[in-house]
Amino acid sequence: MGLGKDYAGQNCAFARTLEILGERWTLLVVRDAFYGVRRFGDFLAHLDVPRAVLSDRLETLVRTGILEKRRYQDAPPRDEYVLTDAGAELWPMLFQLTAWGTRHLDVGPSLRVFKHVGCDGTIAGLTVCDACGTVVPPQETRMEPGPGLAYLREDRVSVALRGPHRILQPLVLT
Amino acid sequence: MGLGKDYAGQNCAFARTLEILGERWTLLVVRDAFYGVRRFGDFLAHLDVPRAVLSDRLETLVRTGILEKRRYQDAPPRDEYVLTDAGAELWPMLFQLTAWGTRHLDVGPSLRVFKHVGCDGTIAGLTVCDACGTVVPPQETRMEPGPGLAYLREDRVSVALRGPHRILQPLVLT
Repeated sequence: MGLGKDYAGQNCAFARTLEILGERWTLLVVRDAFYGVRRFGDFLAHLDVPRAVLSDRLETLVRTGILEKRRYQDAPPRDEYVLTDAGAELWPMLFQLTAWGTRHLDVGPSLRVFKHVGCDGTIAGLTVCDACGTVVPPQETRMEPGPGLAYLREDRVSVALRGPHRILQPLVLT
Repeated sequence: MGLGKDYAGQNCAFARTLEILGERWTLLVVRDAFYGVRRFGDFLAHLDVPRAVLSDRLETLVRTGILEKRRYQDAPPRDEYVLTDAGAELWPMLFQLTAWGTRHLDVGPSLRVFKHVGCDGTIAGLTVCDACGTVVPPQETRMEPGPGLAYLREDRVSVALRGPHRILQPLVLT
């Protein structure tokens, strides 16, 4: 298998999500949608993306339920693109990517800051435990087999990952 | 500008982060590093990625400070790849991508579940306000110009984004 369009053999939610969101320009389109850009010409103006690529990415995002088309003008017919509820759930991930880049890449000071409306606190992207409410670092996260784990792959890493495993700890491979 | 290797003109932390992490296979390598995979042959066995592509991705991840090489054998010399502290900070974003795919793509039940070590609560990827501690949805997030905002682009979207703007609200474009 080469650099095909799908990560064949990587049958997991992560790889499937990357198939959609990992396409060049797609996440920049989604980011702009969060920023309130809705019309084809506005995405085009802001992103300098080739027109055909933008069409393709918008179509994929509509097909996968991340954006929905809304008619805003009838003659001639014109649609705008708005994030669905599922699309809006991508926010913490996009936020986290930006925040990580600001902290760790040499990009200079932040272009934008993100504030809690009303409270004016600064936003942080985190993982939180739904039982105790604690912010949980990866070091305190354990991965366990889920209900959908299928034993499709027999390589030594796949076999080792069938049991519970603490994130960031080296896998014990036989 | 076409589909070049960098998002020229998208001079922000988000686009810069995508340049690194948006390369095909890169995020799957990072995911495996969180799962405890450290050696070239193990990434190779688990990902079915072409050897040259894996070499290239590991090299990029070391160069950008996400992984570090650690010598584990001297004769013959062999290194393993371990997440740096900066790399480990990518966890909420990877977690969020997987969780989103599980909720919204037709991938069946979860392959893996993620638990808080000790407490056994289930982990959620969220954005949290550092002042009031509230979990903040995008609808309650306001974006403001940051100290590094440079007025490089004059398209109507860039101009509209110079002021404070509430996430998910349509931009007012002139």
